[in-house]
Amino acid sequence: MSKFWSPLVNDLVPYVPGEQPKMANLVKLNTNENPFGPSPKVVEAIKAELNDNLRLYPDPEGESLRQTIANYHSLKPEQIFLGNGSDEVLAHIFYGLFQHGEPILFPDITYSFYPVYCGLYDIEGIKVPLTDSFEINPEDYKQANGGVIFPNPNAPTGRYLGLEHVEEILRANPDRVVVVDEAYIDFGGESAITLVDDYPNLLVSQTLSKARSLAGLRVGFAVGNPDLIEALNRVKNSFNSYPLDRLALAGAQAAYEDEAWFQKCCDGVISERERLTKALAELDFEVLPSKANFVLARHKAKSGESLAQGLREQGIIVRHFNKPRIEQFLRITIGTPEQNDALIKGLKSL
Amino acid sequence: MSKFWSPLVNDLVPYVPGEQPKMANLVKLNTNENPFGPSPKVVEAIKAELNDNLRLYPDPEGESLRQTIANYHSLKPEQIFLGNGSDEVLAHIFYGLFQHGEPILFPDITYSFYPVYCGLYDIEGIKVPLTDSFEINPEDYKQANGGVIFPNPNAPTGRYLGLEHVEEILRANPDRVVVVDEAYIDFGGESAITLVDDYPNLLVSQTLSKARSLAGLRVGFAVGNPDLIEALNRVKNSFNSYPLDRLALAGAQAAYEDEAWFQKCCDGVISERERLTKALAELDFEVLPSKANFVLARHKAKSGESLAQGLREQGIIVRHFNKPRIEQFLRITIGTPEQNDALIKGLKSL
Repeated sequence: MSKFWSPLVNDLVPYVPGEQPKMANLVKLNTNENPFGPSPKVVEAIKAELNDNLRLYPDPEGESLRQTIANYHSLKPEQIFLGNGSDEVLAHIFYGLFQHGEPILFPDITYSFYPVYCGLYDIEGIKVPLTDSFEINPEDYKQANGGVIFPNPNAPTGRYLGLEHVEEILRANPDRVVVVDEAYIDFGGESAITLVDDYPNLLVSQTLSKARSLAGLRVGFAVGNPDLIEALNRVKNSFNSYPLDRLALAGAQAAYEDEAWFQKCCDGVISERERLTKALAELDFEVLPSKANFVLARHKAKSGESLAQGLREQGIIVRHFNKPRIEQFLRITIGTPEQNDALIKGLKSL
Repeated sequence: MSKFWSPLVNDLVPYVPGEQPKMANLVKLNTNENPFGPSPKVVEAIKAELNDNLRLYPDPEGESLRQTIANYHSLKPEQIFLGNGSDEVLAHIFYGLFQHGEPILFPDITYSFYPVYCGLYDIEGIKVPLTDSFEINPEDYKQANGGVIFPNPNAPTGRYLGLEHVEEILRANPDRVVVVDEAYIDFGGESAITLVDDYPNLLVSQTLSKARSLAGLRVGFAVGNPDLIEALNRVKNSFNSYPLDRLALAGAQAAYEDEAWFQKCCDGVISERERLTKALAELDFEVLPSKANFVLARHKAKSGESLAQGLREQGIIVRHFNKPRIEQFLRITIGTPEQNDALIKGLKSL
């Protein structure tokens, strides 16, 4: 540690994002990107913004995009908060909407950025174990807490929690914010956004990185009661007034204006997920039921680490977590039919 | 305050960015944007990135852009930290490179985001008065502190501090980080980046929003000892792994590859600044000597507020701060020759 660092820095345990290898021709199934590109309308909309106006600041409130997302979900713009990817949105949530003196609850196997945010803002996090079948049990979220957060579907398990169970957690915590992180909701789950008018303690976060094929553009958002959104705006405006650039704002908006493309991409991922799940089962894998654009699977005999390494030697990258309970699993992003075929062929050879 | 807010939120006093009016045909001289558009090479480089790769995450380390900026300043990439505009960079600096138990020093008249960051991270800020001629006096920065930050040239005064005086502050604070915020350095000042190899406690922040005409793209960076940069990376990777999208990374890099365009824009702003300064003096304004792309000026008889209002009625927007010591001044961004003519004409009519 350097004498110049704030003492806080030494205690940070930063997040490690999935590898972005620079080699060409990889079968890249490690960071849950969409195998299909974004709508051509996104590209057109960004092109239309490529002019001298880049010299001007973007709209700090992203009004037009918030209106578009609000219309899409039959809500009001003051129920929408925008951020530079859902990671930034989540960071502001941890700062602004959890009670820092009390422990935050999240699953033991989940998005590994949650404990990092706890470290950043000096909040205690309690890892609530998933069941033996890797499911969230709502009963476990009925203990005292300063806030609750879980992804739905959960990552990296892919397991989905039905809305009746989400409501059970919401009802058990009327004085605490319950955050449902829906990065993967569009691949077969039902969004809790339909519940925000009923539960003032519900905040739903989503991203355009997955189902909208825009990981490269960095746009995420949260939906909830205007009261919760106001807290996030106060934090954002104390941190960075303009987190979304002009091109990201325009591209994101266009993504919501091409519903057909969106549906086609989601359907394509879902049907490939079903096909890949069957093929993996035939190769002696146990595959957790997934409603995401990835599956978590373990071979009945071969170790997760050796399989990941063997695939890598063939230019196929999947994600392996060296963590308790899931160290035997591979998390495999659903690719294009050709990529999934390559994966199956690769696994057969190991 | 809502019961759902973290107690921290209630105490925040968010930054208020300059207005981004949506009316067309305004003479917009209120947010220090460059009157000239970005290099055509920026537009070309972004167009080349507009493809299916938008579905993929950007390089979280921005390696290629860091290398480009490092080469430009004859430094190493590990001396460069990238952020979503220099505002995000500054936020991470306040978190990671100041000693939070001790007061941070900055001028009483300066970028109004500094006290906001102090509020965000619960740091005490001491406002050190500028001299009567609105200059920074290095002597005033020889008191005990947890870190020092000032813009050079200062904003909204436009006054520049020579590097020999910057060094005086650096030498007086060998155990504390001294941040020189050089958002406006390219309009006639000399950058302290040439000093980073000599002073391990020096951190320089810059932005592409001003001299590079890319306020709409959100790219800023800090330059310093690798040890300081490592602290910022730890904070960034505990907050948001990918703050710069693929298009911003590509556009920013291209901006550094068109030196001729950059020089032409800077020269254009400087010569217009000199012309506008003379014209304002002829209209009975006192104009502070500026090395920025704006001037701070007060009329000998008319109030700042009434002049700003009178200009607004003519569709000319300048910035007026209702703050002690500068409430009689207007901060006027240097526009195109036509915009500056419109401003002069507008002022003559009031």
